[in-house]
Amino acid sequence: MKIALAQINVIIGDFEGNFQKHVHYINRTIREGADMIVFPELSITGYPPRDFLEFKDFVIRANETVERLKEFSREIAIIVGTPTVNPVIEGKDLFNSAVFLYEGKEIFRQHKTLLPTYDIFDEARYFEPASSWKIIEFKGKKLALSICEDLWNLGNENPLYTINPLDQLMASGPDLIINLSASPFDYEHAKERIKVLKANVKAYGLPIVYVNHTGAQTDLVFDGGSLVMTPEGNLYRELPFFEEAFEIIDIERMDQVNRERPKEKIPLIHQALVTGIKDYFGKIGLKSAILGLSGGIDSAVVAVLAVESLGKENVHALLMPSRYSSPSSVSDAVELAENLGISYDIISIDKPFEAIEHELDRYFPTDGITEENIQPRIRMIYLMAYSNKKGYILLNTSNKSELAVGYGTLYGDLAGGLSVLGDVYKTEVYELAEYINSQKEIIPRSIITKPPSAELRPDQKDTDTLPPYETLDNILRLYIEKRLGPQEIIARGFDEYLVRRVLKMVNRNEFKRYQTAPVIRVSPKAFGMGRRMPIVGKYLE
Amino acid sequence: MKIALAQINVIIGDFEGNFQKHVHYINRTIREGADMIVFPELSITGYPPRDFLEFKDFVIRANETVERLKEFSREIAIIVGTPTVNPVIEGKDLFNSAVFLYEGKEIFRQHKTLLPTYDIFDEARYFEPASSWKIIEFKGKKLALSICEDLWNLGNENPLYTINPLDQLMASGPDLIINLSASPFDYEHAKERIKVLKANVKAYGLPIVYVNHTGAQTDLVFDGGSLVMTPEGNLYRELPFFEEAFEIIDIERMDQVNRERPKEKIPLIHQALVTGIKDYFGKIGLKSAILGLSGGIDSAVVAVLAVESLGKENVHALLMPSRYSSPSSVSDAVELAENLGISYDIISIDKPFEAIEHELDRYFPTDGITEENIQPRIRMIYLMAYSNKKGYILLNTSNKSELAVGYGTLYGDLAGGLSVLGDVYKTEVYELAEYINSQKEIIPRSIITKPPSAELRPDQKDTDTLPPYETLDNILRLYIEKRLGPQEIIARGFDEYLVRRVLKMVNRNEFKRYQTAPVIRVSPKAFGMGRRMPIVGKYLE
Repeated sequence: MKIALAQINVIIGDFEGNFQKHVHYINRTIREGADMIVFPELSITGYPPRDFLEFKDFVIRANETVERLKEFSREIAIIVGTPTVNPVIEGKDLFNSAVFLYEGKEIFRQHKTLLPTYDIFDEARYFEPASSWKIIEFKGKKLALSICEDLWNLGNENPLYTINPLDQLMASGPDLIINLSASPFDYEHAKERIKVLKANVKAYGLPIVYVNHTGAQTDLVFDGGSLVMTPEGNLYRELPFFEEAFEIIDIERMDQVNRERPKEKIPLIHQALVTGIKDYFGKIGLKSAILGLSGGIDSAVVAVLAVESLGKENVHALLMPSRYSSPSSVSDAVELAENLGISYDIISIDKPFEAIEHELDRYFPTDGITEENIQPRIRMIYLMAYSNKKGYILLNTSNKSELAVGYGTLYGDLAGGLSVLGDVYKTEVYELAEYINSQKEIIPRSIITKPPSAELRPDQKDTDTLPPYETLDNILRLYIEKRLGPQEIIARGFDEYLVRRVLKMVNRNEFKRYQTAPVIRVSPKAFGMGRRMPIVGKYLE
Repeated sequence: MKIALAQINVIIGDFEGNFQKHVHYINRTIREGADMIVFPELSITGYPPRDFLEFKDFVIRANETVERLKEFSREIAIIVGTPTVNPVIEGKDLFNSAVFLYEGKEIFRQHKTLLPTYDIFDEARYFEPASSWKIIEFKGKKLALSICEDLWNLGNENPLYTINPLDQLMASGPDLIINLSASPFDYEHAKERIKVLKANVKAYGLPIVYVNHTGAQTDLVFDGGSLVMTPEGNLYRELPFFEEAFEIIDIERMDQVNRERPKEKIPLIHQALVTGIKDYFGKIGLKSAILGLSGGIDSAVVAVLAVESLGKENVHALLMPSRYSSPSSVSDAVELAENLGISYDIISIDKPFEAIEHELDRYFPTDGITEENIQPRIRMIYLMAYSNKKGYILLNTSNKSELAVGYGTLYGDLAGGLSVLGDVYKTEVYELAEYINSQKEIIPRSIITKPPSAELRPDQKDTDTLPPYETLDNILRLYIEKRLGPQEIIARGFDEYLVRRVLKMVNRNEFKRYQTAPVIRVSPKAFGMGRRMPIVGKYLE
C-alpha cells in the first residue's frame, strides 16, 4: 500500500486556503498513484485554533470543508484532522478527530484520546476524549488511527495519562499505526519524537506513519520532520524540517532505511526563528520589518534573522543614538547594516529627550531609572511611527535572560509585534551569532566582543545590575525550564543570596512579560502561553 | 453542629501570611465555640496559583503549611483547600483537595472530581480528577465534601462533565454537603451560584454549606457571597460580597431564613472594580496610582474608582493637553480632580511632539494615523516617568469596546499596570458614571454628555471611525460573550456590512490585546486569560 504524507503549512481559520492546499496534495497523490494521503492533526482548521473552537460557526465551516473534500476521495483514501461535534449532551461539545474519507463518503472517524493540557496545550479546554476505538480496514490492511499525544504516553518516566489508546486497538490486530500530529518545535523535540515513536514500535511491533504540521503559528513553530518507522524500529523516512513536504512511501517495501537528519541545537533554533519570522509576516500579509539597531548583539542577530526571513529589501533599521551612546555603537550598527545590505536611518533621540525632561523637570528631576526608561520609550515612538507610516512590523530584540529578570523597559525596548529572541538566553544569542558568522563575518566582531550594555547612562554595563550571563542563564534554566525551587538550585552550587535575588526578579517581573509580544518558542519552556504565572503573589518574593 | 464559614482573602503563594490568616479564624472558631471551620478551595495557596503548581517546592510548602495547622485542630475540625500529591505515577501529579484535620491529625482528604477547564480555568492542566469518594463522619454527622465545580454539573442545559461526584456519595447517606469554592465574580455569578446550589439541594435533598474566596487576584475578583442552604432549598445565609467574612451557623437550627442580598449589575460591577484596584495595589505593596485625565468619561470613571479604592491622597492625575485638545477637556478634568480632591499636574505634550515630528519629518510627514499615535505615546512617557520616579502604578482607562475593536494606541493609551474598564463596554461606562453620580454629582455633567473623542486630530469624534456605541456594544456582546458567528448576528437584525467589519476589527486587533494590561474581569467573558485567540489567522478577516 502506497501512502502519501502531506506535511503542510496552513493558516488558522483560513478554510478556503486550507481547502485548496488539501486539494493540491490530494491531486498530486492521485497523479502519482498512491492509495491514501494522510494530513496532520486539525489540518482543516490549523493548529492551535484556540477559542475559535467555541464558535459553532467556526466548527460548522471546518465540517463544511471536510464535506467539500469528500468528492476528491473517489479514487483514494484521505485522512484529515478536524474538530467534530460530540452528539452526547454531557461532556465537552467537540472531539479532536481523524476523519477517513473514501469513495466519496466519510467511512470512519477516530477521536483523539489523550488531550495534552500543559505548557502551550489546552486541549481539555475544548475536547472530550475518545471513549471508543476501532480499526479501519482499507485495501486489506487494518489501520490504527491515532492523533499526536495518543502516542506520547509511552517512553516517559512519569506518564501523564492513565490509559493508552493503542492498547485498546491491539485486540483487533492492526497492521499499521497512523498518527496525525501537531507537535510544536523545541530544540529537543525532533530527538524526542523519534524516541517516542521507537517506544511505540517496541510496545506494539507495528510500523508507524507520523505526519506533522510545518510552519509557524504566531509563537509556535512546527518543524515537520514527519516520520515513517519500520516494524523493527528503524527510521525509514524523516521528512525535512521547517518546510512543506510531500512523500509517498510503500508500506510493504521499506527496505532502504534512511539516515536521521542532523539535530544540532543552534542550527535548529536558527531555522525555527527564521520560520517564525517568515510565517508571522507572510500569514498576516505584510512584507517588511523595522527594528532598532543598537550596536549590541541582540539586535544584530535579529537583523540577520530578519534578512534571512524577509529579504534584505524588506528589513529597515533605525539607529537612534543618545548622549550616552558610545561612538562605536553607531559605527558597529552601520557596518552590520552595510554587511546585510539593509536600509537604515540615523535619528538622534536627544531633542525629544530634552523636551520631555524639560517639561518634567518642573515637577521632579528625571534622573536614575526614570531617565533610563525615557530613552527606549522615545526610540519606541520612532520605530512605531515607521511602523504606522509604512506598514512595517516592529521586531522586538529582547532576549530570554532580559525578559526573565525584567531587564528592559516596558513600552520601550520591550515593544514589538513579535519577540524573536525572547526564548533564547543571552549565552545562546552569542552561540547564534558565532553560528551566523561561521561561513562569513556578517556580524562585526566588535559587536560580539564588547561587554553588553544598555547605554542608558554613562559607562553602564549589564553586569552593574546583573550577574554574568553564564551564571544568570544557568540559574534561570534551572528555575524556568526545570522548575526547581531555591533550595534545589542552591544545592547545585550557586550562591544562596544570588539565587534568591534572581528568582525574586523573575517573579516580580511577570507584569512586564504579560505585556510583551508573542515570543517565538524554541525551548521546552518559553514565556507566553506555555508559562502561566500569577502577576500578583508572594511566592519567592 | 456549629460550623464556621471563613470567607477569606489570601495572597497567592504567601504561605506564612495565609497560615496566619487561617490561624486567626481557627482561634476565633474555638473561642466562639463552633465544632468545625471551613475554608475555601486552595485556601492555603490562594487561587489561581497557576504554574506555581508545577514547582515541587511550591507544593511542598503548601503541604508544610497544612502540617503546621494540624496542631490547631485538637479541639475543632478544620477543612482547608490545598494541592496534594498523586501517589500514582500515571496521570497528573497533583490533586485539588479538601483536607479534613481533627484531633491534631489529618483524618481524611477528598479530591476534586470536576476540574473546570474553560474560560479562565485551567485545572486539567494541573490536577488528576478524584476517582474515589467517601463520606467523613464527624460528631454523628455524615459529611459529603466537595470542591467548587463538583456542584456545577447540575442545573445546566449542556453539562460539561459525564459524572456527578455527589451521585457517588449518596449511597453512604450523607447529612450535609460541604463545598469549598474559588468561584470568581462576574455580574451574573451571584445569581447563578444560588441557582446551582438550589439544583443540588433539589437533586440530593441535603443542606449545603458553601464557602468562597473573597478579594482580587490580579484580574480575577472573588466576591465571597458564601452560602448556606436549607434542605428545603431556602437561603439560610448569604455572606457579604467583596469582603472577608466569618459566620458560625448551627446546622440543626436553620429557622430564620435570610433575605437574598441585592444583585444589581452596575452596583456589583462598581464594587468588583473597587476591590480589583484595592487588592492589586495592596497585594503588590504599593499605595498610589497615577492616571491620565483626558476630560473624557473613561478616565473620569477610573479616577472615581481609584479614589474609592486607594483614598484621594493616593491618586494622582496628569492632564496632558495637545494642540488638538478642546479647552473644555482641561477644564472638565480640573473640575473632576477638584471634586475628588486629588492632586493633578498639567503638562503639555506639544514640545516633545514637535521635537519628534521635527526629527521624523526628515524621513516622512508625520500625518494621519502616525501623528495620532505619537500623542498618546508621549503621554505614556510622562505617566511612566511619574510611575518610575514615585512608585505609582499607572491605571489604564481603556474600555472593553475600544479594546475589542483596537481603538487605542499600543504603548500609548493602552499602557498601564491594570486595566480597570477593559471588561466594561462603553455603554456600561455611562451607566457606571450615572450610578456614581446618583448620590452627588462627582463627574461633571459635561463629561457625560459630550460626544466621545480621542482628540488626536481637529474635531475628531469616535463615530468618525466606529458605529454608535449602542450598536457596537450589542454586536460585540453577541460575538464576544455569546460567541455567535456573523450569520447569527446578522439574523438578529444588524447590518451585514457592519457586522463583518466589526468582527474583522475584533480579530485583527488580537495583537494589541495580547500586549495590554491584565483586565479586571466583571463579565462572563473578559479579555485576557479567559479568552485565548490566535493572533495570526484568517477567520472572519
